[in-house]
This record gives sequence, structure tokens and C-alpha cells, in this order.
Amino acid sequence: MTAPEQRAPKQDRSRLTRERLLGASIDLLATQGWAATTVGAVAAAAGVSRGAAQHHFPTREDLITAALLHMIEQRIEDVRNVGLDLPEPGPERTVAVVRLIVQHYTSDLFKAALHVWTAAASDPALRDRVLPLENHMSREVLAIAASALGRDPADVRVRRPLQATLDLARGLGLADVLSDDSARREKVIRYWAETIDLVLAQNPETSAEDVTSATF
Amino acid sequence: MTAPEQRAPKQDRSRLTRERLLGASIDLLATQGWAATTVGAVAAAAGVSRGAAQHHFPTREDLITAALLHMIEQRIEDVRNVGLDLPEPGPERTVAVVRLIVQHYTSDLFKAALHVWTAAASDPALRDRVLPLENHMSREVLAIAASALGRDPADVRVRRPLQATLDLARGLGLADVLSDDSARREKVIRYWAETIDLVLAQNPETSAEDVTSATF
Repeated sequence: MTAPEQRAPKQDRSRLTRERLLGASIDLLATQGWAATTVGAVAAAAGVSRGAAQHHFPTREDLITAALLHMIEQRIEDVRNVGLDLPEPGPERTVAVVRLIVQHYTSDLFKAALHVWTAAASDPALRDRVLPLENHMSREVLAIAASALGRDPADVRVRRPLQATLDLARGLGLADVLSDDSARREKVIRYWAETIDLVLAQNPETSAEDVTSATF
Repeated sequence: MTAPEQRAPKQDRSRLTRERLLGASIDLLATQGWAATTVGAVAAAAGVSRGAAQHHFPTREDLITAALLHMIEQRIEDVRNVGLDLPEPGPERTVAVVRLIVQHYTSDLFKAALHVWTAAASDPALRDRVLPLENHMSREVLAIAASALGRDPADVRVRRPLQATLDLARGLGLADVLSDDSARREKVIRYWAETIDLVLAQNPETSAEDVTSATF
């Protein structure tokens, strides 16, 4: 930001405090898990007083959903930027698009989000807050991926393989939590990209009924 | 078991206590999460004294890895039994095989296992205990699926799509934690089964290099 220090120092400090709290939340979630990520622990990790933290985020749920949203927006921006710099159209571009989606789900954000999702599994109120974030992220990533392939995300023949790619990526992200799965994952990515190319090449033969079927 | 009550009542009681503790562990994990699943809480839920519980399972990690292994063995048996009763070979059989794998990852066992995996993400000692269980389960489910498709699981052209199916199923299981995802999931299952049939039909055209490449 370019606002002079003397013009809005209070707002700047407030924004900085907020961002430090959000960043510390993601770090703590990814490394220590849900139980350890209290407002007090996040405030301490961020070097912020507990009172200041609670001024910004009255509850842990407020803090953590804000942190997830903040990270999701950053990640979508990252994915969008990488999506602008892919190989020429062809098999390697499809591989790059699948890899882009999978990397999104093997990031630190995913590891942080996994702790929140798992906690949400036994906490309906948290689930109601997390689900719209997840849907928002999926829609954005899917649209970026379709665009990178030069395809229409509204076309069910495109949306299906890409939606399945998001599901695959989530599963690969989960496997990565238990062990460094990167060598195997790269093979799955290449194999999966080949199947997408094969399916998209079949498009003209897709039945009309299939094309007009409801959302996926 | 057919052993008469008077012959081995103590062993029977011991086995029964053990099984009740294992079942209560899975229930508590799936519904309350990792933090709530202590040896004491499991003992109370199973109606077993804490001392008896600790006699069987000195630590929480002992209890929970035993519970996971017990459930995994049961689930593999379930998958094997369903695998014997599938539609005739053809597209619907492939759909049934994919659905079988996906159901495995949307079961209560998966929800219990997810809590353990997530806890293991920040706990290397737990991770070392959980990883062999997960690998064992994946191998068995993959072998059953290959057999149900009348294919050789050692053939890389078969192992690849089935391995990707396991990854996809894990991702679908994770999505199911946040919302009832069953209608969308069924469409993904059908899409992926059609893709597998398409890929397997291409087998004769697979290059020799591809066929002989290393394990997936």
C-alpha cells in the first residue's frame, strides 16, 4: 500500500495485525492441528496481545474461517497466475493443468484446511461456515482450469473431467499428509492428463442427452 | 466361536472386551474426533473399566491402531464379498467396481481413519504406525478390484487406472465429510468408470515402454 505512514497509521497497523493473525492461524493449523489453534495460541504466535486478537476475531471460528478465506483468495490468485504461463496447447499443457490443480491440494493451505474439515466433520456449525468457502474455491479453480485448456467450463463434457480432477487432487492431497508421495503423484498426474485428453477427443461422439444433462 | 462357555470363559470375555473397545474407538473417532478419543473415553463408551482397557491397550496409539486394523480387515472382507456379486462383465460391472471402491472411502471407517490421518499429519510417531495400515488396505482393495474386472493387478495398464480410482475415492470421501455429496458422487463414479473402459479398450495401442515402466 502507498498510503503515507502519517495518514492512516492506525488503519495500517490494524490491517497488519489482522494479516499476522491470519497467517499465524494457517501456520498453526498446518503444523499443530485444530486443537492447538486457539485464539490465544494464534495471538502468541503472531506476537499480538490476546485482547487485540479478540478485537479482530471474537471467536476461534471467526478467526479460522477468515484465515481460510484469506488463504483461498491468495491461492486462487496464485493458480490464476500460473495458469497464464503454461505450455502450448497439447498433451503437456493438459499435464500442466492437472498438476496445477493437484499442487493446489498439496499446498500448506490444504494441510491447514484438512484440519478444519476434519474438525467440521463433528461440528455442524463449523461445517456450515466451511462449506461455502470450499465451494467457492472449487468453482474458481475449475473455471481457471477450463480456461487454461481453452474450454467452456459450462460444458458438461469439460466440467465432468475437471470436477473429477478436483476430487482426485483432494485424494492425492490426503495421501501426501501421510508420506512424501510426490514421485507416485507425478505418475498419477500424467496418467490422469492422458485420460482427459482421450475423453475430450471423444467429445463429438458424446450423445446429445449426455451434453444437456443437469449440472455435475 | 464354538468353544463351550465353561471351557474358555475367561478368554472369551477377554476377546469380547477387546472387540467392544475396538468398536467403541471407531465410533468415537468417527463421531467425536481424535481429541475426544482417549483410552478413558473409549473404556466408558464400551462399558469397560479403565484398568481393563489399559490391560489390553497400554496407550491410546495402541488402541487406535488396533481399532483401525480390525476395521480394515472387516472392510476388506466386506469389499471381497461384494466383489463376488457384481453385474456381468461390461460397462455396468466397471461402474460397480468403481462404486465399490468409492463406498469403501465413504464408510464410517474412512471418517474414523480421517481423524487419525489428520492427527498423524502433526505426529510422526503416529504416522509411522498408520502408514503401513493404509498401504495394506490400498493393496488389498486394488487386488480385489482388478480381480473383479478380470484383470491382472500386476499389469501396469490395469494398476494405473485402479490406483487413480483409489486416489479419486479418497478425495470423494473427503468431500463427503463436509456435505451429503451422494448425487454428485454417483455422476463422478459413472464418468470415471466410462473413462476406465475407454482407457482399457485402448490397451493394445499402449507403447511397450509404457507397459514395462516401473511401478506406479
